[in-house]
Amino acid sequence: MMENSAINLADQYRFTDFERKSFYKTVFSRRDVRGEYTKTDIAGDVLARILMAAHYAPSVGFMQPWNFIVIRSETTKKKIHGLFKKANAEAADMFQPEQQKVYKNLKLEGILEAPVNICVTCDRDRAGPVVIGRTHHAAMDVYSAVCAVENLWLAARAEGLGLGWVSIIDHKALKETLKLPKRVVPVAYLCLGYVSHFHDRPELETANWRRRLDLADLVQFDTFGGKADDDYSKQLIGTINDQQQKLESGTPPEGI
Amino acid sequence: MMENSAINLADQYRFTDFERKSFYKTVFSRRDVRGEYTKTDIAGDVLARILMAAHYAPSVGFMQPWNFIVIRSETTKKKIHGLFKKANAEAADMFQPEQQKVYKNLKLEGILEAPVNICVTCDRDRAGPVVIGRTHHAAMDVYSAVCAVENLWLAARAEGLGLGWVSIIDHKALKETLKLPKRVVPVAYLCLGYVSHFHDRPELETANWRRRLDLADLVQFDTFGGKADDDYSKQLIGTINDQQQKLESGTPPEGI
Repeated sequence: MMENSAINLADQYRFTDFERKSFYKTVFSRRDVRGEYTKTDIAGDVLARILMAAHYAPSVGFMQPWNFIVIRSETTKKKIHGLFKKANAEAADMFQPEQQKVYKNLKLEGILEAPVNICVTCDRDRAGPVVIGRTHHAAMDVYSAVCAVENLWLAARAEGLGLGWVSIIDHKALKETLKLPKRVVPVAYLCLGYVSHFHDRPELETANWRRRLDLADLVQFDTFGGKADDDYSKQLIGTINDQQQKLESGTPPEGI
Repeated sequence: MMENSAINLADQYRFTDFERKSFYKTVFSRRDVRGEYTKTDIAGDVLARILMAAHYAPSVGFMQPWNFIVIRSETTKKKIHGLFKKANAEAADMFQPEQQKVYKNLKLEGILEAPVNICVTCDRDRAGPVVIGRTHHAAMDVYSAVCAVENLWLAARAEGLGLGWVSIIDHKALKETLKLPKRVVPVAYLCLGYVSHFHDRPELETANWRRRLDLADLVQFDTFGGKADDDYSKQLIGTINDQQQKLESGTPPEGI
């Protein structure tokens, strides 16, 4: 009886196949969007839901260290775009000549085209000097804000909106432009809007910049570099290979 | 005609109401699990899907800097648990006497109880010294690994599994224990397993450690501290308040 009861308890919290697959659809169709924004404005209730998903992200010591600066003014967007252009020119110079040619043809942001830009920040003093879980790793608050960014990104996809993370910006200049107080650091500058379409694959993959790695090569056992040496591990690696092959060939593997 | 065509194009990429709500269910029912693990082992295909969701997270310059060390051996878990105990004793001492009492009663990890532990790492040399998007902010690769952690966490929830992030560990000691090479940094140490139940609310909220903040207080406009001063912003703040009130009272707001 106890065992049955435990099973029923777990059932309450189980997702149906369809619910689980819907979640995976969000994950596997999410893209870093730079170039396909339409002019359609984002309705308030949609933007509210997306921000809510971000706000319910996990945070160290329940710190909720984030703020979300919603930017819609052309003036501010142009200032930020100026920061991007400056940083991007510097960035291009860092690559080898062959790579530079490819780099300069990549579209890496949609600041002016996206109707809404959002800067996600981290207030490092949100919960006083001693925070549960941040005692041994100071960056845990910033990691929490990154979790909020990923929730926001996936929620945007579920709402049919594209999102792009613009990381080629000098953070000091960004901080000044958006008037962040000293204790607050910028974590992500995001472009958000409806899109004409989502790409099937990441653009850097299509451009042959880098390929999608095999997950089986990245999974290790017990310690770094540890190989699959028992039945469980070997079977896991086999299943991973099978699932990724199916995903990449456009046939969702079982359960996805 | 053009406009219709654009709408149809967008329709192709739209989620149904049910799909979108399933995604939100994942986000809003996710918990940081420490204490409710059952002994049920995780089937290989389930663990493979969860790791796959992590692997399809966004990454700067398509760098995919992560590794996933899957830990199932009691010996390794005990070593890590020892690291936690040491760090947790140090952590407790940092709080004020009143807080210390509460702190010492909190269960902050499930290392030994969870059937699977996973250490997510970041290989800072995964794609050579110059990485698209990391040129102006060196931590972007670590942020990518955090996005993978959040995907993994949500996927676990969609699969009916609980996950907890153990951050009270000295990273240097963790690195030695798991034999990470110099170029690889630990990002997250995770406990994963089936659970008897998920809590309705975050445990730190129930323990009155901190309350859930009002999202409306965290959303700002144009610059840090910028107030809602046009119709769009004012309406957004109103909708956010309404949505959060409904969420917290257990009545999902429209669209969630």
